[in-house]
Amino acid sequence: MTIHALFTSLDLIGTFAFAISGAVAAHQKKLDLFGIITLAYTTACGGGIIRDVCIGALPPAGLSDWRYLALSIVAAGLVIGAGQLVQKLSQPVLLFDAVGLGFFAVFGAHKALVYGHSMEAAIILGMISAVGGGALRDLLLNRTPVILQKEIYASAALVAAVLQTGGETLGWSLRWVPWVAIALCFAIRYLSLCFHWNLPRFANDKE
Amino acid sequence: MTIHALFTSLDLIGTFAFAISGAVAAHQKKLDLFGIITLAYTTACGGGIIRDVCIGALPPAGLSDWRYLALSIVAAGLVIGAGQLVQKLSQPVLLFDAVGLGFFAVFGAHKALVYGHSMEAAIILGMISAVGGGALRDLLLNRTPVILQKEIYASAALVAAVLQTGGETLGWSLRWVPWVAIALCFAIRYLSLCFHWNLPRFANDKE
Amino acid sequence: MTIHALFTSLDLIGTFAFAISGAVAAHQKKLDLFGIITLAYTTACGGGIIRDVCIGALPPAGLSDWRYLALSIVAAGLVIGAGQLVQKLSQPVLLFDAVGLGFFAVFGAHKALVYGHSMEAAIILGMISAVGGGALRDLLLNRTPVILQKEIYASAALVAAVLQTGGETLGWSLRWVPWVAIALCFAIRYLSLCFHWNLPRFANDKE
Repeated sequence: MTIHALFTSLDLIGTFAFAISGAVAAHQKKLDLFGIITLAYTTACGGGIIRDVCIGALPPAGLSDWRYLALSIVAAGLVIGAGQLVQKLSQPVLLFDAVGLGFFAVFGAHKALVYGHSMEAAIILGMISAVGGGALRDLLLNRTPVILQKEIYASAALVAAVLQTGGETLGWSLRWVPWVAIALCFAIRYLSLCFHWNLPRFANDKE
Repeated sequence: MTIHALFTSLDLIGTFAFAISGAVAAHQKKLDLFGIITLAYTTACGGGIIRDVCIGALPPAGLSDWRYLALSIVAAGLVIGAGQLVQKLSQPVLLFDAVGLGFFAVFGAHKALVYGHSMEAAIILGMISAVGGGALRDLLLNRTPVILQKEIYASAALVAAVLQTGGETLGWSLRWVPWVAIALCFAIRYLSLCFHWNLPRFANDKE
Repeated sequence: MTIHALFTSLDLIGTFAFAISGAVAAHQKKLDLFGIITLAYTTACGGGIIRDVCIGALPPAGLSDWRYLALSIVAAGLVIGAGQLVQKLSQPVLLFDAVGLGFFAVFGAHKALVYGHSMEAAIILGMISAVGGGALRDLLLNRTPVILQKEIYASAALVAAVLQTGGETLGWSLRWVPWVAIALCFAIRYLSLCFHWNLPRFANDKE
């Protein structure tokens, strides 16, 4: 398997895991068929679309590559037709989601650098690529985004984006930097799920 | 009436119908004068602005053509000053809205193709042009977008966008393709209103 | 102090006041550390990012200049570590916020004109620069934006954007137009806070 084929596979696996998470959330809120497909697509592609609009990569990849829409429709169909199965697979989906998280953070940061933007833009856009879709999903479902409230999620993406951006700027080899960054993000996310790690929250002075 | 004048008329009629729907929703939520104008404008122009940002047509038409803002202010004034009248006109407004829906889907898809984007981008952006404003209206009013929950609405826009994109790609004449697409979208939307058609929703396994 | 240094100071003061308002709102909603920083950053930079995407100034300044992110992190730390102090400072923060409001409206309108856009686009984008961050803050916290509901806030920004756009188009001197516009916006906002001015709201016919 060439590097490029591996990259493409990770991209599609991550997209599919994100689409499943959007479709499951829409299904729980009893949206109709169109709503479930839209949520799957928005969760999978929303972060990348925001990134591409900000770096001037038009049209956004999520709009011009039919595979993302196709994967979203497949994910929606799977959730509708085989909800029982998807529930059994919820553990694997969380793992795929963690792989997608790291991949999107690394790829988002890399794409921003390729388009000539600064390190700071690359780090922020890497993180937005990874968590933006989930935030849009929660906005459309009318709730405060989960990533703002609990769990080490965006922070794991941030670590991956920082490592990729730093490594690429320092001229480290692209042969290993992305893989280390993805693995590190996956490990942080996996351990935080196992041990219920959360970022600190603060007592509210007003209470 | 030339083709161009007819197109412009449809655009303004659709914009006005969308602005009315935004102003009515804002008025029901008791927003202030600025809130009602903002909702009217966002509903009327939001979908087109997202489309223009995604295809690189800057500045978005909704920002650079004063007629859209003017129509939004007129719609807001009408809803505030003549609420009774607007309620009586709710049936006609639904029909104008259906005309606008088809027109925006067709025009959005056409504009994406003119800017050199792919068929898939044209179809998705046509649909976003048509339904994006309504989705933003619902987000600002803090509720899950209606289009994700019920009624054949986005689906009618999708049919129009697909027909326009396919016809244009196949080289069919622009003399009749847009009109057929708009008429088809209008017919689907009108019949779904008459007969209360909805997309399927699915039993939730978790209950 | 040169004009440029003064401009930069106003920009950073306004950004900081906006970041504080985002961090306070996130803290009240008990978001975690990441959530508080995100809300501070979104409130401070969201309006400018929307403006820059619409005028084609990529990447948006909020993403490429590290000082905005740094200020947001400082604001979040201050709110977390010294909540009591921030409560005592709530009056000064409101004043800084009013300065930032005028500055962002003026600077947003100016930047849109510099990028060659129309007067209408400059006015709307000036206003969006000033109030967009606050609207995003409220969307992420799952509530209808405050600016749509009460207080003379967006209206004060609108006055500043109109004055700056009109003055610049008429060729008035940039030596005094921005300062008058910022001062006028500040005065309107300050007086509306003192005297509890609000835009009119309208009896709902349906009740």
